[in-house]
Amino acid sequence: MTTDQAAQLLKQFRAGAISLEHTLGAFQSAPVAELGFAAVDTHRALRKGFPEVIFGAGKTPEQVVRIATKLAEQKQPVLVTRITPLHARAIRRKFKHAVHHVEARCVTIAKPPLPKRPGIIAILCAGTSDIPVAEEAAITADIMGNRVERLFDVGVAGLHRLLNRFAQIQQANVLVVVAGMEGALPSVVAGLVAKPVIAVPTSIGYGASFGGIAALLGMLNSCGSGVTVVNIDNGFGAGYAAAQINALCSPP
Amino acid sequence: MTTDQAAQLLKQFRAGAISLEHTLGAFQSAPVAELGFAAVDTHRALRKGFPEVIFGAGKTPEQVVRIATKLAEQKQPVLVTRITPLHARAIRRKFKHAVHHVEARCVTIAKPPLPKRPGIIAILCAGTSDIPVAEEAAITADIMGNRVERLFDVGVAGLHRLLNRFAQIQQANVLVVVAGMEGALPSVVAGLVAKPVIAVPTSIGYGASFGGIAALLGMLNSCGSGVTVVNIDNGFGAGYAAAQINALCSPP
Amino acid sequence: MTTDQAAQLLKQFRAGAISLEHTLGAFQSAPVAELGFAAVDTHRALRKGFPEVIFGAGKTPEQVVRIATKLAEQKQPVLVTRITPLHARAIRRKFKHAVHHVEARCVTIAKPPLPKRPGIIAILCAGTSDIPVAEEAAITADIMGNRVERLFDVGVAGLHRLLNRFAQIQQANVLVVVAGMEGALPSVVAGLVAKPVIAVPTSIGYGASFGGIAALLGMLNSCGSGVTVVNIDNGFGAGYAAAQINALCSPP
Amino acid sequence: MTTDQAAQLLKQFRAGAISLEHTLGAFQSAPVAELGFAAVDTHRALRKGFPEVIFGAGKTPEQVVRIATKLAEQKQPVLVTRITPLHARAIRRKFKHAVHHVEARCVTIAKPPLPKRPGIIAILCAGTSDIPVAEEAAITADIMGNRVERLFDVGVAGLHRLLNRFAQIQQANVLVVVAGMEGALPSVVAGLVAKPVIAVPTSIGYGASFGGIAALLGMLNSCGSGVTVVNIDNGFGAGYAAAQINALCSPP
Amino acid sequence: MTTDQAAQLLKQFRAGAISLEHTLGAFQSAPVAELGFAAVDTHRALRKGFPEVIFGAGKTPEQVVRIATKLAEQKQPVLVTRITPLHARAIRRKFKHAVHHVEARCVTIAKPPLPKRPGIIAILCAGTSDIPVAEEAAITADIMGNRVERLFDVGVAGLHRLLNRFAQIQQANVLVVVAGMEGALPSVVAGLVAKPVIAVPTSIGYGASFGGIAALLGMLNSCGSGVTVVNIDNGFGAGYAAAQINALCSPP
Amino acid sequence: MTTDQAAQLLKQFRAGAISLEHTLGAFQSAPVAELGFAAVDTHRALRKGFPEVIFGAGKTPEQVVRIATKLAEQKQPVLVTRITPLHARAIRRKFKHAVHHVEARCVTIAKPPLPKRPGIIAILCAGTSDIPVAEEAAITADIMGNRVERLFDVGVAGLHRLLNRFAQIQQANVLVVVAGMEGALPSVVAGLVAKPVIAVPTSIGYGASFGGIAALLGMLNSCGSGVTVVNIDNGFGAGYAAAQINALCSPP
Amino acid sequence: MTTDQAAQLLKQFRAGAISLEHTLGAFQSAPVAELGFAAVDTHRALRKGFPEVIFGAGKTPEQVVRIATKLAEQKQPVLVTRITPLHARAIRRKFKHAVHHVEARCVTIAKPPLPKRPGIIAILCAGTSDIPVAEEAAITADIMGNRVERLFDVGVAGLHRLLNRFAQIQQANVLVVVAGMEGALPSVVAGLVAKPVIAVPTSIGYGASFGGIAALLGMLNSCGSGVTVVNIDNGFGAGYAAAQINALCSPP
Amino acid sequence: MTTDQAAQLLKQFRAGAISLEHTLGAFQSAPVAELGFAAVDTHRALRKGFPEVIFGAGKTPEQVVRIATKLAEQKQPVLVTRITPLHARAIRRKFKHAVHHVEARCVTIAKPPLPKRPGIIAILCAGTSDIPVAEEAAITADIMGNRVERLFDVGVAGLHRLLNRFAQIQQANVLVVVAGMEGALPSVVAGLVAKPVIAVPTSIGYGASFGGIAALLGMLNSCGSGVTVVNIDNGFGAGYAAAQINALCSPP
Repeated sequence: MTTDQAAQLLKQFRAGAISLEHTLGAFQSAPVAELGFAAVDTHRALRKGFPEVIFGAGKTPEQVVRIATKLAEQKQPVLVTRITPLHARAIRRKFKHAVHHVEARCVTIAKPPLPKRPGIIAILCAGTSDIPVAEEAAITADIMGNRVERLFDVGVAGLHRLLNRFAQIQQANVLVVVAGMEGALPSVVAGLVAKPVIAVPTSIGYGASFGGIAALLGMLNSCGSGVTVVNIDNGFGAGYAAAQINALCSPP
Repeated sequence: MTTDQAAQLLKQFRAGAISLEHTLGAFQSAPVAELGFAAVDTHRALRKGFPEVIFGAGKTPEQVVRIATKLAEQKQPVLVTRITPLHARAIRRKFKHAVHHVEARCVTIAKPPLPKRPGIIAILCAGTSDIPVAEEAAITADIMGNRVERLFDVGVAGLHRLLNRFAQIQQANVLVVVAGMEGALPSVVAGLVAKPVIAVPTSIGYGASFGGIAALLGMLNSCGSGVTVVNIDNGFGAGYAAAQINALCSPP
Repeated sequence: MTTDQAAQLLKQFRAGAISLEHTLGAFQSAPVAELGFAAVDTHRALRKGFPEVIFGAGKTPEQVVRIATKLAEQKQPVLVTRITPLHARAIRRKFKHAVHHVEARCVTIAKPPLPKRPGIIAILCAGTSDIPVAEEAAITADIMGNRVERLFDVGVAGLHRLLNRFAQIQQANVLVVVAGMEGALPSVVAGLVAKPVIAVPTSIGYGASFGGIAALLGMLNSCGSGVTVVNIDNGFGAGYAAAQINALCSPP
Repeated sequence: MTTDQAAQLLKQFRAGAISLEHTLGAFQSAPVAELGFAAVDTHRALRKGFPEVIFGAGKTPEQVVRIATKLAEQKQPVLVTRITPLHARAIRRKFKHAVHHVEARCVTIAKPPLPKRPGIIAILCAGTSDIPVAEEAAITADIMGNRVERLFDVGVAGLHRLLNRFAQIQQANVLVVVAGMEGALPSVVAGLVAKPVIAVPTSIGYGASFGGIAALLGMLNSCGSGVTVVNIDNGFGAGYAAAQINALCSPP
Repeated sequence: MTTDQAAQLLKQFRAGAISLEHTLGAFQSAPVAELGFAAVDTHRALRKGFPEVIFGAGKTPEQVVRIATKLAEQKQPVLVTRITPLHARAIRRKFKHAVHHVEARCVTIAKPPLPKRPGIIAILCAGTSDIPVAEEAAITADIMGNRVERLFDVGVAGLHRLLNRFAQIQQANVLVVVAGMEGALPSVVAGLVAKPVIAVPTSIGYGASFGGIAALLGMLNSCGSGVTVVNIDNGFGAGYAAAQINALCSPP
Repeated sequence: MTTDQAAQLLKQFRAGAISLEHTLGAFQSAPVAELGFAAVDTHRALRKGFPEVIFGAGKTPEQVVRIATKLAEQKQPVLVTRITPLHARAIRRKFKHAVHHVEARCVTIAKPPLPKRPGIIAILCAGTSDIPVAEEAAITADIMGNRVERLFDVGVAGLHRLLNRFAQIQQANVLVVVAGMEGALPSVVAGLVAKPVIAVPTSIGYGASFGGIAALLGMLNSCGSGVTVVNIDNGFGAGYAAAQINALCSPP
Repeated sequence: MTTDQAAQLLKQFRAGAISLEHTLGAFQSAPVAELGFAAVDTHRALRKGFPEVIFGAGKTPEQVVRIATKLAEQKQPVLVTRITPLHARAIRRKFKHAVHHVEARCVTIAKPPLPKRPGIIAILCAGTSDIPVAEEAAITADIMGNRVERLFDVGVAGLHRLLNRFAQIQQANVLVVVAGMEGALPSVVAGLVAKPVIAVPTSIGYGASFGGIAALLGMLNSCGSGVTVVNIDNGFGAGYAAAQINALCSPP
Repeated sequence: MTTDQAAQLLKQFRAGAISLEHTLGAFQSAPVAELGFAAVDTHRALRKGFPEVIFGAGKTPEQVVRIATKLAEQKQPVLVTRITPLHARAIRRKFKHAVHHVEARCVTIAKPPLPKRPGIIAILCAGTSDIPVAEEAAITADIMGNRVERLFDVGVAGLHRLLNRFAQIQQANVLVVVAGMEGALPSVVAGLVAKPVIAVPTSIGYGASFGGIAALLGMLNSCGSGVTVVNIDNGFGAGYAAAQINALCSPP
C-alpha cells in the first residue's frame, strides 16, 4: 500500500464510503504493503536500472524461461547466471536477441541496453583460469549499466604485468579483483589505489588450495585497507556490489 | 619523483648542469618514484583526508607514540586501532587533545576534525556484545570525514527492532552491518535496501560459532545481493571501505 | 515378555507345570523381553501409527522390496527414503498402490492412509532448490498421520514473502524450517512464533557453503530461542521429530 | 499498536479529532505495531508463562540488573544465564529472593513461581562433568513452568546405569540428553523411547573432542530417529525448546 | 646375514680363506642384513602364518598378478585388498582356486588354508551398509589363521539386537567393531567386555558425517576404556591388528 | 542378580516363602542384574586385577578422595589420572602410602601391588616432551599388573637411537608408541615388529601441529600394518588397551 | 629499458634529437622496463637454462600449443605439466621430437637437451602410487639441466629398503622426498643427510588422509631439521626448487 | 664403529687376541655404528660448522644448561631456541659470553664465531610483528656461519618498500621470506628472483587468519615457482634450511 493509497483509504473511511472494520482490516491484512518495502524495491529496480537476476543453477530450463519471460514482459533487462548450454538453448529459442556468454556461463536479454553510467568498473584477474569468474562479474556490471574495463592475467608472480596497467587501474571507480591459488592480487592492488577493492577468490588451484579456501582466507586477511570479499567463485556478487557502488557515485 | 621534478632533472641535464651518470642514476636509484605510485598515494591522503592508520596490536606504546607524532607533524588526523589502555595513556601524555574511544579500543587525534561529507554511513549491529566492533567501524568512518548513524541491537531474533529503523536504513549511502552468532542480519538488511552492504562477522558466540566462523560463513553465503564481507572482528576494515565508497559519491 | 506373560510363567512354575530350569532359562534367555522395551516399541508403533522407515540409500532394490513386504504384511504404512528411480520401479512392480514422490526421493505405501491428527505441521523452505529436502520432511510427517502445510520459497532476502504468510505460520504446532546457503530463515521464524522450530540445513550453495556447513553452523548458533537442528539435508529426521512433537499435543 | 488502539485512532480521525496527516503518520511510523507480532509476542509471554531470558555473558552486572528490574516490574519471572558470581551478587543485592544456581551459572527471580504443567521433562547427562550444562537446561525448563526429572551420570560406558532408569525415561514427555566426549547417549536413549529427544553436546573431553565438535557431529549423525540438536554447551536452548514442546502437550 | 652366516664368515677369515678386505666389505655392504630385521621379518611371516598383503588400489591387474605369483611361489597364503572386479578376474585366470570375496572387495589364495588358532575374533557392525568394511576385517583375520564370528547389524538404535548377542560377545578374545554415522557402537561394546576393542569408523552417512569424520572422532573420544581406533573404512587394518593380538594369546 | 541368586529366588517363591508380586518385582526392578553384565564386570575387575580408574580432570579433590576411598575399601588398587597437585595432596592426606607420579599427573594406591604378569609392555616415546603422556601409559599398565619397559627419546630424526634398542623392542608383547609433531615413530616401529602397536599422538608441537592433529592423522594413516590409535594425549587409554592385550596372552 | 638504452635515450635528448616530452614519456610510460626486472628475468632464463614452464591444467590443447610454439621459437626448452593425452597429442602433431612422459603427465621439447650440471638431485618416493608425482619432479629437474637419481618405493614401513640405498642418498646435493599417507619418509631421510630435503606430500591414501592433508601436516611438523615443503602433489614445484638449489652449487 | 676400528677388530680376532663370540657380538651389538651414519653425522657437524640445536620449549632451564654444557665442551657453537627469560638467565649464569637475543627468543654461545661463508642469506619480513620469527631465522643462519642481510617491514601493501630493496634482493643466494596475515610476500619475491625462496608463515593476524593457517595456505599455493614452505612461526627451520643451501654453494 503506497502512501497515496493509504490516504485514499482513510478519506473514503472518513467519508463513510467504507466501514471501520474494512479500514482496520485493510491495514492489518497487508502488513508487507504497509511497510512499503516490497513495492519500493520493484520500483527502484525499474527506475535505477538494477535488473532482477535469475540464478540458473538448480532450475530447469523451463523454469528459467518462464521467469525470464515474466521479467521481459516488464521491459526489464534479464540476466541469468550459472547456466548450462541447455538453459541457453531454451532461452534463445524464445528470445532471439538473447546473448549467451559462454565463458561467463550467463545469458543476457537487454534490448535496448541500459544507458551506461560515466564511471568505470575495472575487473582484474590473476590467471587465465580465473577468467570465467571475472567474466561473470563483468557481464553483471555491464548489464546493470556500467562501463567495464577488463585487465586479465595480471597475477603477482610477474608483477610487471600489473604495473604496466597502472594508469587504467588508477582511473577506475571500483575494482573487482579475481584470483585463485594464494589470492594475493587484491592486497597488491589495494596498495596501489584509494578506491574500493572487491576481492573474489576462485576455486582455481589444487591440493592445499582446498577448492578456494586458501584464496578466500588470503583475501579476508589482506593487509590492504578497504578490501572486501565475496564467496568463492561469486563473480556475480562482486559485479553486483561494484554496480551498486558505481551507481552511488555516477548518477546516470 | 613527480613529473615536475623529472622534467626539471632532464632540463638540468640538457643544460649541462648535471652529468649523464647523475641523471641516469637518479632515474635508476628511485624506481618507486619513477613508478609514481608511492608519492601519489601520500598526496592523495593529504588531499582527500584519508589518514594513515596505526594498527596498535603488537606495537609498544613507545612505537605507537613515535609514529603518531610523525603523522601529527604533517597535520594529518591520526587513528590508532586495537590499543590497550597502556597505549591510550602514553598517547594522551603526549597529545592532550587525543580522544580515547574505550569501547572501540581506538585513539583519535584530529584537531581540527575533517569537514564531513554529505552522505551518511549507517553502522548496524545485531546485539550489545557486537558494539565494540561496530564502534571501531564508526570511529574509523568518522575520522575519515563521514557522518555516521549508529543503529545498534537490531538483530533478526526481534525483527521489529530492525523494521522500526527502516527509514534511517533507507537513507544511508553505505551500510556496515555487524553481527556474531549466525550472522543473519546482513542478509535481511540487503533485502531491504539497494545500497552496498559491508558485513562484519564478530567472534561473539560460543560452541559451534568457532570464534566467528559461523557468522563469517553465513555472510559469505548471504542470499542478499551486494553483500561483501571483511575479516572477523574487522570493524576498522569495514569502516575504511565504507569511507572509500562514500568518498566516491559525496565529494566534499 | 510382558508383565502378564511373566506372571503367567511364574504361576505355571509354582503349579509345577514347568521346571526350575525352564523358568530360569526363560528369564535369562530373553533379556530384551525382560526389559520390555523392544516389544513395547513395536506395539507402540502399531498403536500410535509411527511406521517403520526404510533408509533406501545403500540398499539394493531387492532388499528394499523384501523389507517393505514384511512391513506391509503387518498392515503398517511403509515409507522408503533416499531412493533412486530403480528402487521406486521395483517397489511399484510389487505394490500397485505405492506412490513415488519424485521430488522427495521417497516411496510410500499407505492404504488406507492413517487418520490425520488435528494439529498442523508447517514446512517452510527458503528457496526452490531446498524443496526436495522440504518435501522429504513433508512426506514423512504426512504418512505419520499429520496435516502438513507447505510454505516454500520464503527466504529472508525478500522478507515480505515470509511476513505475507504470517497467519499460517502462527497457526502451526511445530515448524520445520529448511534452508541452505547462510541458513538464516530459522532465526527469523523463531523470532515470530512461540512454537518449536526444527531447522534443517541443506547442501544448497557453493564455495564457502562447504556442502551445507555454513547453513548448519548458522542454525546451531541461531539467536532465536527454541531452535533445534538436524543433520544437513535430513528432511526425514525433521519430519519425524515434528511428528513426535505433534503426536504429544494432538492425540488422535 | 493493538487492534483496539488502531480502532480508536480511526474513530478519532473520523470524528475529526485528529488530522489525516496525523492518522496516516501513526500507521506509517509504527510498522511493527501494524504487523502486530511484537506486541502479540509480549502478551503471549505474560499469558503462557514464557519469560524473557537475559544472556548474561558479555553484559556488565549493572546492565543485567537494569534489564532484570524492568522485567520484574512487569511481574515476569526472570532468568539470567551464563553469569559470573559478580553478576549474581549484584542481582541479589537488588532482589533479595533471587536464587543463584551456582552449578548452572544462572540466577532466577520467580516469586511466586509459575504453576507447573503436568507433563515431565527428563534431563539426562552422561557424566558428572556434563552436569553444569544439564543444570542450565533444568533451571530453564523449571522456571518456564515445567516439572523436571534429573537423571545424571548415565553414560553408555556402563549401560546398566541407564537401563536402571528405564521407567523414568519412558514417562517423560520430552527428553533433554546432555553428553560430551563421543556424545553417544542420545542415540541410545532415542532407541528406547518414542518421544522427542533434544541432544546437547558439551565441550567436555580433550584432544580430538575439539571442544565439543566430536559430540556435536555424533549427535547430528545419530541413528536414532527424532533426535534434534542444539549448540555445544547450550543447556538453555535445550531447556527452552523442551518447554515449548511440553507447553504444546500439557496445557496448564 | 644371519648369526650363523656371520660366524661362518669370521671363521673363514680366521682360516685365511678370505681376505680382510672381503670380510670387512661383507659387513659394510649389507647394513640391513647386519641389523637382522628384514630377514627375521620374512622368516617370521613364513613360520607364524602372517601372510604378505597386497593393497590392490592404484595397482594394475597385471602388477597385482605378478606380486601374487611371487608370493604364491613361496607357498604363502595371498590376500589382495581393495580390488575391482577387473583385478579379481585377472587373478582368477591365473589362480583357479582363488576366491573373490565380492562384498569385501578382496581376493584370497590359500590352498590349503592355514590351521585355525583356538581363540575367536568377533567382528561386529552397526548397520548393513557397514558390512563391506566388516567383511574386509573378517576375511583378513580368517586368512591369517583365526576363527571369526560375525555379528552384523547390531547398532545402538535398537539396543536389544546387541544385548541378544551378549554371550557371543563375551566369548571373543578380541572384538572388531565397525560403525558409521555417529560411531557409538564401540563405546557400548567396550562397556560390556574386558577384552580389546578395535573400532573401525566407516564413511557411511551423509551431511555432517563428513565421510566418516563424525564416526572417527566419536571412536577416538570413546568413554569406553580399551578402545583403539584405525583409519576410516580400514577393515584390513583392524583385522590385521586383531590377528596380531589373537596370535599372542592363542599359540597354534 | 547371579544365576544362583535367581534360582534361589524362584525356589523361595515356589516354596511360598515370597509372594508372586515380590518375585515378579525382583525380576522387573533389576533389569541390569538380570542381564548379568554389570555384576560380572565388577567381579572380573577384582579377579583379573583390572582396577577401576578415576578420571581426575573436572572433579574436585573431595570427590576424588571419596571415590578413591570407596574403591580402597574393596581392596582394589586405585589409579587417579589427570590430577593437579591439589588432588594429589588431598589423596595423600587420606592415604599415606599413595604415590604421586608427578610427571604422569597420576596418583596410585596399590598396597600390596598386583603380581606382575610375565609378558612385557614396551612404552616408547619420540621426544622428551612426550614423556608425561608416555608415563601415564606406563603407570596405567604397571598398576594393572604388567611389567613395563620404557624406551624414551627414540624419535625418527635420529634413527640410530631406535635401532640401538632393537632387541628390547623385539621382546615386548605389546608396544605403546607415543609421539607428537609428525607422529612418524609408530610407522617405523610397526615395520620392525610383528606385535600389536598402539599409537598415542601427543599435543607436542606448534603451528600446523594443531594441538596434535598432525600426529593423530599421521598415525591413522600409518603404512605400518597392525597400528591402532587412541586419542591425543591419551596415555591412559593406550596403557589400558595394552594391559588388556597382555592379559590375554600372559595369564598370571 | 636497459641501462644502455636509457643512456642512449638521454644522449639523444641532450643532442636535441628527441623532445623533452618524448624523453619524459619514455621513462614514465615504461615503469617496468625502468625497473629492469622483467627483461632480466627473461635473459636469465636463457642464460642459466631455466625454461619457462606451461601449466597445462585448465588450458585448451590449442592454447598450450600456441604458447609452446612461442617458447620453441626462442630455442628455449619447453616443459608442459598437468596435461591430458589430448594435450600431448596436439603438441606432438606440431613438434615431432616432443616427448610425452605418460606417468608424469608432462610433455617436454628439448632438442638439444641442456648440458647437465655436475651435482645430483635425488628423487625418493615412499610407494608405487607416489611415482607420478615423483616423476613430475624428476622430469622438471632433468629438463632444467640436472642429473636425477630415482629411488622409488623406499617407504618407512620397510626401513631396510631405504637404508640399502644409503650411499646414493648421501651423494645427492638436494633430495626431493615424495610420500602420501602419513608422509613420514622426509623426517627419516632428513635424519640421515645434511643436505636440503624438499618434501612433497601426495594425495595418496584414503579416509583420514583427507586428500593429502595428513601427509602435508606430517611434513610441516617434521622433526628433521632442514625440511621444506611444497603443496600436495606439487612434483613440479619441488623439482623446480631443487633445480634452483643445485644451480647455485654446481655452476655449469 | 669406523672402518678403521672394524679392521682393527678383525685383525685382533685373526690374531687370536679376541674370541669369535666377542667379535661377532661387537658387530651385532652396534648396528648403528656398523651402518656408519650416526658417527658420520657427528663428524660432519664438527667439520662443516653445523651446530647441534637445542629446542628450549618444554625443557627446564636446568636441562637446557646441561645439554648446552655438553655441546660447549666439544667446542661446538650452541644455539638454544624458543626460550623464556628464565632459560636465558640460567644459561648466562654458566656461560658469561652467551648472548641472549631477546626478540628472537634465542641464546647463542659461539666463541669464537664460525668463519662466515661468502654467499648472503636475505631474510625478509612483511611487518614489524613478524620480526621475532625473522630474527630466529637470522640468528640461526648467522651462527651456522652465514652472512645475513635483514630486509624487514617490506610487505606487499606498500609495494615500493620492497622494490626499493630490489638490488639487495637480487644479490642473495637464498631468501627467507617471513609473513603473516595473507602471506603474499613470498609470491611477489619469487617473481623477482631466480633463487630459492623459503617461505615462513607466521601466526600474526586475527579472525580468519586462524593462527597462521591463512598465511600457510597462501604460501603453499604460491604461484611463484621455487617457493618451499616451513611450519608456522618456524624461523629456525627456515634459517637452517637456508644455511644448508648456502653451504652447498659457498664452500668456506
